[in-house]
Amino acid sequence: MPGSGLWWERPDLRYRDGRLEFGGRDLAQMADGGTPAYVYRAGRVRDNLLRLRAALDAAAVPHDVYFAVKSNRHPPLLDDLRASGSCGIDACSPAELGLAVERGFPESGISYTGHAVSEEDLDVLAAHPGVHVNCDAISTIRRLGRRCPGRAIGIRLNPGLGAGYNERLTYAGAKPTKFGVYPDRFEEAIATARSAGMSVDTLHFHVGSGYQGDSLDVLDQVLQDAAPLLDAHPEIHRLNVGGGLGVRMKETDVPIDLGRWAGIVARHALPRGLRVAVEPGDYLVKDAGVLLVQVNTIEDRAGTRFVGVDAGLGILNLWAYYRIPFVVAPLRLRASAPSGRVTVSGNINEAIDLLAEDVELPALEEGDFLALVNAGGYGSAAASNHCMRGAFRELLLPAPA
Amino acid sequence: MPGSGLWWERPDLRYRDGRLEFGGRDLAQMADGGTPAYVYRAGRVRDNLLRLRAALDAAAVPHDVYFAVKSNRHPPLLDDLRASGSCGIDACSPAELGLAVERGFPESGISYTGHAVSEEDLDVLAAHPGVHVNCDAISTIRRLGRRCPGRAIGIRLNPGLGAGYNERLTYAGAKPTKFGVYPDRFEEAIATARSAGMSVDTLHFHVGSGYQGDSLDVLDQVLQDAAPLLDAHPEIHRLNVGGGLGVRMKETDVPIDLGRWAGIVARHALPRGLRVAVEPGDYLVKDAGVLLVQVNTIEDRAGTRFVGVDAGLGILNLWAYYRIPFVVAPLRLRASAPSGRVTVSGNINEAIDLLAEDVELPALEEGDFLALVNAGGYGSAAASNHCMRGAFRELLLPAPA
Repeated sequence: MPGSGLWWERPDLRYRDGRLEFGGRDLAQMADGGTPAYVYRAGRVRDNLLRLRAALDAAAVPHDVYFAVKSNRHPPLLDDLRASGSCGIDACSPAELGLAVERGFPESGISYTGHAVSEEDLDVLAAHPGVHVNCDAISTIRRLGRRCPGRAIGIRLNPGLGAGYNERLTYAGAKPTKFGVYPDRFEEAIATARSAGMSVDTLHFHVGSGYQGDSLDVLDQVLQDAAPLLDAHPEIHRLNVGGGLGVRMKETDVPIDLGRWAGIVARHALPRGLRVAVEPGDYLVKDAGVLLVQVNTIEDRAGTRFVGVDAGLGILNLWAYYRIPFVVAPLRLRASAPSGRVTVSGNINEAIDLLAEDVELPALEEGDFLALVNAGGYGSAAASNHCMRGAFRELLLPAPA
Repeated sequence: MPGSGLWWERPDLRYRDGRLEFGGRDLAQMADGGTPAYVYRAGRVRDNLLRLRAALDAAAVPHDVYFAVKSNRHPPLLDDLRASGSCGIDACSPAELGLAVERGFPESGISYTGHAVSEEDLDVLAAHPGVHVNCDAISTIRRLGRRCPGRAIGIRLNPGLGAGYNERLTYAGAKPTKFGVYPDRFEEAIATARSAGMSVDTLHFHVGSGYQGDSLDVLDQVLQDAAPLLDAHPEIHRLNVGGGLGVRMKETDVPIDLGRWAGIVARHALPRGLRVAVEPGDYLVKDAGVLLVQVNTIEDRAGTRFVGVDAGLGILNLWAYYRIPFVVAPLRLRASAPSGRVTVSGNINEAIDLLAEDVELPALEEGDFLALVNAGGYGSAAASNHCMRGAFRELLLPAPA
């Protein structure tokens, strides 16, 4: 096991002499400063962003990227994205919009896509006329129109098809989901916008959260299904394909072939002269972050070895609630430690508070540090103080100058 | 429907002239002050506490009640419980312990039951020698013993059997769960305590979270299974039956027969001269609280009517993550409004962010207020700022003087 090409290792996250390094930094040294700690690497976020943009450029797709700030709102990370000049922000609440403005993003670089938009939310949107709003309900169109006649908006379409890390994260499917306007009411949505004096310039949709390489056919199908709507409305000149691009969380996940992904987008967008928008969250930050925790309790219970750590579902709920599996990696490997299967349990008093189940790890000792790999998205951002166990540190490793 | 004896109505929570009242107060008036808002009623918390104590008194069970503060840590609510003089606090983290001390609970009224107890946690426990600690791992016993020889502790037993609101909340069962010491290692736990110079005065267990009246046999079985351990260790003179007493969340839930519950406890505790401890959380606060929200969006999607409101799983995650069903009640009933089935969706950008699904409600209008009934436990306490939608008010209606 030690440093021998584990599937998730990569040049910027790998063992060297038995110590796990992230961007050339020894993570154990950082853990000594206190755990739990989220460590993000700005360089990796930028690499992910530029890779995505390069794929669209290679397919000649004119595009804009809006980072889904709900996935990670650590201010230094946002500042670095802002400084890159390569992306805007996708906000889903007035507070997120306010944060984007506070971190220096111009209104023209902010896209707003929310559900259950209140009157107060709409007042905030009205006060930011340069923000582009994707309406996910006819009700929202009607109420925004009262405030902002003349505004150009997007309509979020519910494609009725979806893909994601698993069924808990599939945003559209056989059962009606809460997002967007279904195709059968699309014309009504258009008419509502028109009668409020608004124009519709964007068709927006999400196919899910965390779709992998084997789900690209779903994206293709969704775009094909949307073709009649686009044909009927040449005034729509932007196509927002949302977020949802996933990151490999287990060895069997099929990596996204970005070339193929961009090719699918290009095939549908280019013939219509559509400009494309993308709203990646996880794709930019998930593999740019790790959560460092300390083992405090190793205990065998009824044939299962439980490794208790100093963090719980309050600060990383993705296994407990979403069944997103994390790689767990010791920060220091001991020579010839035999490995075995363990379950990593958190410090929240709920039976489901596990961070990882039945994972292979070398023998550990209490006091050891572990990394939960690829924890940069929807970890800290969704943190709670449940059981008053909500404290954690956040560190951003700066991008190379 | 209007005020006509809905199953969940009760003297302190009912419609009067088409307005939902809580402790005689018009909830719509409170909602006008801003939503989302949790409203708790101190009188109901006290009633629940006294009912539980009365049942144990009636069965002649000497007992102590420790409120599981993880279920609700609203300071005024804790102050009222403190003032009642009728219960202590069950804490599961150093910060909860600190909160209990800060609100005036004496160490002798604090019970600590935690999982994945760190060295830092143990330092805090060592600094509070009057707090009673229930150890849930042999590792914890060993490490606490190093700091506190001579201390009297409890051992948390994993009974290998469980019950709860549903399978997501069953703390012990066929699959090994993270909590406690399984019976096969109980003697080892005792020996570990002894060799550290500690005495074991308490046997502690939980059977789950939210068990209902039809699960009392499980409690009985667990106590029966524990009998040999108690017989072998007459030095154990306290029995802590944990928390988990549930509240009816749907009409078909079988209410707990407290008399029968106390009778089961008595039958096992009295012949052995055991003093009993109970750690109720939900039982005290769940039906003592409602969450008030405002409808902002009513939208039909593919045959489902979605009622979008100004709160989401960030502040009430019990349906989305635990499938605990809430009664949803309009704060004002309109005369002759036809009813229909709706799904209440939250303002978090996740497809699973629903507060209630497929519930019967009278026809609503955007702007209407709703109550999520029996939301006093594990709502605000587990709140996050996901999507930066974490703001809410909390109000405690004082107990009658």
